Amino acid sequence: MLSRLPSRARFLSTVAATPFPAGGNFTSISALEPGQLRSLLDESHALKALYRPSAPSATPPPQPLAGTSVAMIFQKRSTRTRVSTETGVTMLGGHPLFLAPTDIQLGVNESVRDTASVLSRFNDVILARVGHTSTIEELCEHSTKPVINALCNKYHPLQTLADLMTLEEKWGRGGVDGRTISWVGDGNNIIHDLMVGGAMLGANVRVATPPGYECAPDVVERTREVLHGGRELKLTPDASVACEGADVIVTDTWVSMGEEDQYDQKVAEFAGYQVKESLYEKANPGALFMHCLPRHPEEVDDEVFYGDRSVVWQEAENRMWTVMSVVMAQRGKSVQ
Amino acid sequence: MLSRLPSRARFLSTVAATPFPAGGNFTSISALEPGQLRSLLDESHALKALYRPSAPSATPPPQPLAGTSVAMIFQKRSTRTRVSTETGVTMLGGHPLFLAPTDIQLGVNESVRDTASVLSRFNDVILARVGHTSTIEELCEHSTKPVINALCNKYHPLQTLADLMTLEEKWGRGGVDGRTISWVGDGNNIIHDLMVGGAMLGANVRVATPPGYECAPDVVERTREVLHGGRELKLTPDASVACEGADVIVTDTWVSMGEEDQYDQKVAEFAGYQVKESLYEKANPGALFMHCLPRHPEEVDDEVFYGDRSVVWQEAENRMWTVMSVVMAQRGKSVQ
Amino acid sequence: MLSRLPSRARFLSTVAATPFPAGGNFTSISALEPGQLRSLLDESHALKALYRPSAPSATPPPQPLAGTSVAMIFQKRSTRTRVSTETGVTMLGGHPLFLAPTDIQLGVNESVRDTASVLSRFNDVILARVGHTSTIEELCEHSTKPVINALCNKYHPLQTLADLMTLEEKWGRGGVDGRTISWVGDGNNIIHDLMVGGAMLGANVRVATPPGYECAPDVVERTREVLHGGRELKLTPDASVACEGADVIVTDTWVSMGEEDQYDQKVAEFAGYQVKESLYEKANPGALFMHCLPRHPEEVDDEVFYGDRSVVWQEAENRMWTVMSVVMAQRGKSVQ
Repeated sequence: MLSRLPSRARFLSTVAATPFPAGGNFTSISALEPGQLRSLLDESHALKALYRPSAPSATPPPQPLAGTSVAMIFQKRSTRTRVSTETGVTMLGGHPLFLAPTDIQLGVNESVRDTASVLSRFNDVILARVGHTSTIEELCEHSTKPVINALCNKYHPLQTLADLMTLEEKWGRGGVDGRTISWVGDGNNIIHDLMVGGAMLGANVRVATPPGYECAPDVVERTREVLHGGRELKLTPDASVACEGADVIVTDTWVSMGEEDQYDQKVAEFAGYQVKESLYEKANPGALFMHCLPRHPEEVDDEVFYGDRSVVWQEAENRMWTVMSVVMAQRGKSVQ
Repeated sequence: MLSRLPSRARFLSTVAATPFPAGGNFTSISALEPGQLRSLLDESHALKALYRPSAPSATPPPQPLAGTSVAMIFQKRSTRTRVSTETGVTMLGGHPLFLAPTDIQLGVNESVRDTASVLSRFNDVILARVGHTSTIEELCEHSTKPVINALCNKYHPLQTLADLMTLEEKWGRGGVDGRTISWVGDGNNIIHDLMVGGAMLGANVRVATPPGYECAPDVVERTREVLHGGRELKLTPDASVACEGADVIVTDTWVSMGEEDQYDQKVAEFAGYQVKESLYEKANPGALFMHCLPRHPEEVDDEVFYGDRSVVWQEAENRMWTVMSVVMAQRGKSVQ
Repeated sequence: MLSRLPSRARFLSTVAATPFPAGGNFTSISALEPGQLRSLLDESHALKALYRPSAPSATPPPQPLAGTSVAMIFQKRSTRTRVSTETGVTMLGGHPLFLAPTDIQLGVNESVRDTASVLSRFNDVILARVGHTSTIEELCEHSTKPVINALCNKYHPLQTLADLMTLEEKWGRGGVDGRTISWVGDGNNIIHDLMVGGAMLGANVRVATPPGYECAPDVVERTREVLHGGRELKLTPDASVACEGADVIVTDTWVSMGEEDQYDQKVAEFAGYQVKESLYEKANPGALFMHCLPRHPEEVDDEVFYGDRSVVWQEAENRMWTVMSVVMAQRGKSVQ
């Protein structure tokens, strides 16, 4: 893939790659240095170029994660996170161990602390999809092996890696620099990490959220910290304002798993937030559409979702290459 | 195994093997050409001969599915389908990814179309055990990777492959030609595929179903299309008539998973349909018994089920060799 | 690890290793010959020494279980048993197949007998965590492949292997000889196997259980049979008496999974049984603490559980090396 990417010149002037530390916890984009984000994306591109040949290669690809065991704890079920991690880790020779919500009731029959101590003895990496950020923090405190936050109520850094990788495949390595990323929807975990990551790569970020659904102040502050080169962060309740000059419009479901009883209320409060062709009126030509899935029609109509702007399947696939990149870094490995 | 099989001469005169197409969907026996059925059975025999040595071999067997990822979607749980696929794919070096009903609620939180698009990005083959045939059709429409129907309400083609493989192990390759397969029970997905597959291999097919439980008319029609060499299809409500001249009597549970509330009614309607030794009175000497399992005593008594006629454990094992054959074909591989 | 163990002289005078038979069922410590217990522990130490290098080795470790499929049936969920077996079997090149309570309802939709017959056709080893011992016995009767009891209401032999391995890491190979193992808690499956195994290795065993929670008479009898060298078995309702001269104090949860409604009653009946520092007053200097986990505060306080005496994480890890040892023995393999 990298060979097909446009010139790197523009980006290389802004941030240089610095390695993500072996053994380090991957908890949020906010917690990264910009150079570490750059490094994880570079490894993601390299993994995809090496392991996704259009024609099967005669020689089997290297297995840098042979002997590596990755425990995958899910407090909430998930198709993409589970399948992308399990397939990606296996591709690299590692062993993914899927612990469903019914297999391990994290914090219910055994404390998070004790579970972290036990899994640290069996596994080399602990990936967890949890409810509260505090559970990730507790895992990090007591695990002696690196932790991956595979979604919590505040962050979803694996999704941001996949999103930025997808945008770089479209715009070239470093091509996010100077572009505008627009969010229309809930001020949730997805935009929290995307706004920081986009800013780190030199994007303008424009965010529309309904009143009462604004982004967390500390994440907004972290975004402002990493903004550079005259880029700006715009927060607004007006979806059409957020989409002015957009190079990509991003949204997510309004009603997360477990919140189904809030459906009617949320649909009412998010009136006017559905992404449809008319929202692209003031966007840049060729502006894209992204969504982390699963998608419901209320937040984006069929025309956009299944249309030419949409890169959602490529974005989904990139969940795999990016989680592979994180595990590789944590294990001190690289294919570059 | 093949080396122990009787002469092929009789069968080779009737149908020649034609390869199942790489990348093709495996949806029902009705959808196959007879030569493709022949080809899948030949590969199944070859796989069993190669991978089931009585003594462990010094050299490890080849891993033709190395790097191949098989997503296994289950809308209904299953012991045999799950264990046979997972063990078989692993034996060939591939990676089976088990998605339980609680892991992925196909069509509930995400549409079948979107799920097909996503899994196509991660996996090389999608095997699905579903409720309605329409779900298999929808997966086939939207998946860019080959689909395997691992049971739907109308078809169960993997079971038919295992059944015919078992009969060929008993009677020799091509040995189904001229034999009589008798069914006593519900006109369900199992007999639908078995009647077509048996007819393709030259068998007579005799089917007893109670009134109201007859086979689907289009499957009966497809069976008549492929009948050849003067063989006949007999449909009757009389179990003893169906078993005249039988070389094998086959049945299945009367009450499928999820239909437990119909138990009393079904047992009443299927009175006289229990397979027991007296049903073999007009069968051919040495006539066999098959059942796809799980078995319940109402449809077959202990004497037959645990007796010498029964080949049910061999039949269960052959679920593994046959699903391996289908995945191999879809991936354009062969050990022959 | 073995190289760091103290002199073997003391123990070698008491019992010589005799191999656990290839293909044999592993059902309880009571069913072992002392030499077989010795042999399984020796292999456990050897596996840990070979497969747990402090630094990753240049050459990949051998894969003696390549091609070996281990079915793991769980009637009750479990973190440790599941993760230790799945990780350990994979490390040796084998394929663990996790069958959750929701995947396979053993004995519900299909009889234990039929399930044993079917799994024997697909898998090389059947590990089962069940409710009643009779289910293990039934699996052993009908399976043609070796069975591992991974917990039943009466026995938990894998836990005992891990416990004795941990004690040998602390005291040296053979170092259990002449030591005193004290139990404070329910007369349950954990102490049943530990009292027999400890006695086989030359330990004194002191057991405190509240009235009505005594150990099973046949297990007590088996313990007396294998006691040797003047060691003694002491049964008492007094926790402080049981802990006199202890080299290790062991306990377990008072309220097992599925018994949550007995919580209040049990806590009342086990008053005075909480392990805390004061129980160590008459113990030997440096006496240890063990617990099979998951732990609840009522049976052991934080000071002991998280303190220097506690070897619970090492004990948990050893669940992995010991189950690997059992599977290796059943498959006729060894790394020694």
